[in-house]
Amino acid sequence: MNATIFRSAINIAAISGIYLSLAMLIPAAIDVYFGNPDSTIFLLSAFMTGGLSLITAAATRAGPPPFNKRLGFLVVNLLWIVACLIGAVPLWLSSIDLTFGQALFESVSAVSTTGATVIVGLDDAPPGILMWRSMLHWLGGIGILALGLFIMPYLRVGGMSFFKLESSDIGDKPFARIASYTRAFIAIYVAITLVCAIVYAALGMSRFDALNHAMSTVATGGLSTHDASFGHFKSLPLLWAATFFMTLSSLPFSVLIVFVVRRRFDALRDPQIRVFLAYLVLFSIAASIYLRLTSGIDFHEALAHSFFTVSSILSTTGFASDDYTQWGHFIVALAFVATFMGGCSGSTSGGIKAYRLIILFNFLRSGLYRLIYPDGVHAVRYGQRTVDLEVQRGVFLFFLTYVALSALGAIVLGLLGYDVLTAISAAATSLSNVGPGVTEAIGPAGTFAIFSDAALYVLSFLMLLGRLEILTVLVVFTPLFWKS
Amino acid sequence: MNATIFRSAINIAAISGIYLSLAMLIPAAIDVYFGNPDSTIFLLSAFMTGGLSLITAAATRAGPPPFNKRLGFLVVNLLWIVACLIGAVPLWLSSIDLTFGQALFESVSAVSTTGATVIVGLDDAPPGILMWRSMLHWLGGIGILALGLFIMPYLRVGGMSFFKLESSDIGDKPFARIASYTRAFIAIYVAITLVCAIVYAALGMSRFDALNHAMSTVATGGLSTHDASFGHFKSLPLLWAATFFMTLSSLPFSVLIVFVVRRRFDALRDPQIRVFLAYLVLFSIAASIYLRLTSGIDFHEALAHSFFTVSSILSTTGFASDDYTQWGHFIVALAFVATFMGGCSGSTSGGIKAYRLIILFNFLRSGLYRLIYPDGVHAVRYGQRTVDLEVQRGVFLFFLTYVALSALGAIVLGLLGYDVLTAISAAATSLSNVGPGVTEAIGPAGTFAIFSDAALYVLSFLMLLGRLEILTVLVVFTPLFWKS
Repeated sequence: MNATIFRSAINIAAISGIYLSLAMLIPAAIDVYFGNPDSTIFLLSAFMTGGLSLITAAATRAGPPPFNKRLGFLVVNLLWIVACLIGAVPLWLSSIDLTFGQALFESVSAVSTTGATVIVGLDDAPPGILMWRSMLHWLGGIGILALGLFIMPYLRVGGMSFFKLESSDIGDKPFARIASYTRAFIAIYVAITLVCAIVYAALGMSRFDALNHAMSTVATGGLSTHDASFGHFKSLPLLWAATFFMTLSSLPFSVLIVFVVRRRFDALRDPQIRVFLAYLVLFSIAASIYLRLTSGIDFHEALAHSFFTVSSILSTTGFASDDYTQWGHFIVALAFVATFMGGCSGSTSGGIKAYRLIILFNFLRSGLYRLIYPDGVHAVRYGQRTVDLEVQRGVFLFFLTYVALSALGAIVLGLLGYDVLTAISAAATSLSNVGPGVTEAIGPAGTFAIFSDAALYVLSFLMLLGRLEILTVLVVFTPLFWKS
Repeated sequence: MNATIFRSAINIAAISGIYLSLAMLIPAAIDVYFGNPDSTIFLLSAFMTGGLSLITAAATRAGPPPFNKRLGFLVVNLLWIVACLIGAVPLWLSSIDLTFGQALFESVSAVSTTGATVIVGLDDAPPGILMWRSMLHWLGGIGILALGLFIMPYLRVGGMSFFKLESSDIGDKPFARIASYTRAFIAIYVAITLVCAIVYAALGMSRFDALNHAMSTVATGGLSTHDASFGHFKSLPLLWAATFFMTLSSLPFSVLIVFVVRRRFDALRDPQIRVFLAYLVLFSIAASIYLRLTSGIDFHEALAHSFFTVSSILSTTGFASDDYTQWGHFIVALAFVATFMGGCSGSTSGGIKAYRLIILFNFLRSGLYRLIYPDGVHAVRYGQRTVDLEVQRGVFLFFLTYVALSALGAIVLGLLGYDVLTAISAAATSLSNVGPGVTEAIGPAGTFAIFSDAALYVLSFLMLLGRLEILTVLVVFTPLFWKS
């Protein structure tokens, strides 16, 4: 590892830290508006973290470094770590009584768009803190979209090189095109958030709730301003609206961008969209039939709750309309498996994701064919495209580490004193950035406040791993990474 | 699919059915000796199944078919299905009150050397039935060893082509050598069984118990003649003896064969042996320290129970010395993860197995290195050998289907009304042929009698899938397999 690279990476992270510290002025203003004393906490936090970032940025100032992969990995890791640490400061200092482990967990949960919370009593929490959590969600969402669009494909993590922008998309002026992509992508993200907020408000939320939930929705985050999450509003139309926006936010953002920039709908033919929507509808209908038959609630209600819950889990948002751990064993098993699955690549959703599931399935099929005809040609396909060996390898590597880390996480949580189902469920829901688990205590009606700080650190690390597609983080732990 | 091939496969399975039916004369004789009326059940079953097998064999008689892979897959599947069906008949008809689903489950559990039982009250069960279960274990064990040594490597299932007998092992007279291998392998299997039985008897078991448990041990099966399994004997020396023989039976049989036939110890350098023993010792010591600290039992006792329990799970035997689901969350989480891991290739143990774990781990390492230096050479190694792409693919295919079937099994069991932990645990323990699960009901102190027949059919299928390395079974379900 070259010292210049390390210095450059810290510099970039510190500069982003300055911006994030400045963002604290928004919740400070909100607390002033609502007359909440926490406004001084935000000003103090902004001053401290901003000052520290400024000093660090100044101390590490240098010319632009030559871009290489190590710098890329280092910058990504540092950016997220710095955001999580800075995000935690006002939570830690606020009037809500949190340990540092709890504040860090809440911040990581927000930045990674997971949406698990350790705060009990959200309905009476200071508005600035609520807004800050939503903002961390929203900024975390924009960060992950930028990462997936512009950086991950070049770091070749977990098969994401498969989604490099095609030269036909970029055209012959790559830099100009990337700039227009970036503008389009931010504009679309802001536009969806605003439309979502307007719809939520029109369907009965207060303006404050509507804005917070819209930011949380578009980031597929899941933090709410109420302990009961969407259950607080007792409105089926709101559930359908949220279902729509959570699902939209799980689709590849590139589809929308290519449409806005190039007026082309080609990307809609991406097989992951069809497959994702297919398993979303299948799971939802299965759940609603089961719910109708076992609970006796009327079919429209069963349908609304099922679609909402399934799309909440598959989009890795984690909003809740009700305590689905009480809906029967089938729903719990379905929720558990859905926790791993996720949405589409290039969205804010986490999990294994539909395109990897497609590649894994087609790998299985071609593998079985190869057993029968070992000498035949059995390409692994993704739609019309052939998936090359490098992408296959990336997808497996991701799948393998995903499963291994769930198991390892469960053992560590077992050692820390949690029962095996809580341990597995918490590890899985953190790694996929969903939020709630499938037991009563950590499910949609519970919180992660049951965990000790030690367990929260483990879970925070898992959320970060999952958010950065695991390998981006693991690679930094190899000795080779640090060798000159 | 060629009709000749199908006919040949049925013929081979029917001939093996004749032998298995004849084997029922042994439990019949035992029931006569102990004066138990079930002897007539065995004679009746032998007559029925033997007759049916004889007629089928005669009706499908033909010249030796040209060996091809489809015939191989078909024969393997049919052999195990026929053995499970024939094995179930006396259990179904016996004085123990079992439904057909329960009898089939018990038979599949025995033949697949899983060792889960639906029978409550083993201590008073007819001795012929107990011996029949042990015999099915023992024959299932010899079957899987033959499969692993001589057939699987050529079917190239799950990366097992990696363990083809080397031409240096076989020498220049392949057929003569294979014959001497087969003789050596059966002789060693019988010898270990007898030595194990003698040791068990010397340490206090009755001769009947000693023989039954020895057959169950060497097959890494796990069915016992007592509801309390090894806990019945309350003897630490017996736990150590069983630990030794279960571990021995999880090592590659080829090591012993090569030693006996060629007086060579080379195979001991096989990395999977070191790795398997390493994680066995690591898990056992971790468990015993935890047990000592949390329960206050003395250290030797903690050590004996921990080594016994860990080797019982890792060898996929499934004997129990105590109800380890009550030993604390860490042990349960450890047991859950160990359920997936398994022993060495070419043994009677199930699970993912050490050599696959090694290949997966080295795949992960080389994958992370490749992220840093994409153009470097990053071979996946197994000891000194390079793992070729075909074997990597096979290992991955196995891992993928293993995880996917655990998830699918859990959903189906959830639909059938079982809670998510019972569902996952039962699916996993069946697929790895371990036996007990990690909840109180289906754990070492419980039985699988809690499951409905529908659930038992699902679990029976999973046991069979696991036993035949999954892909051997799945391949038969592809349309391509049946195309001419």
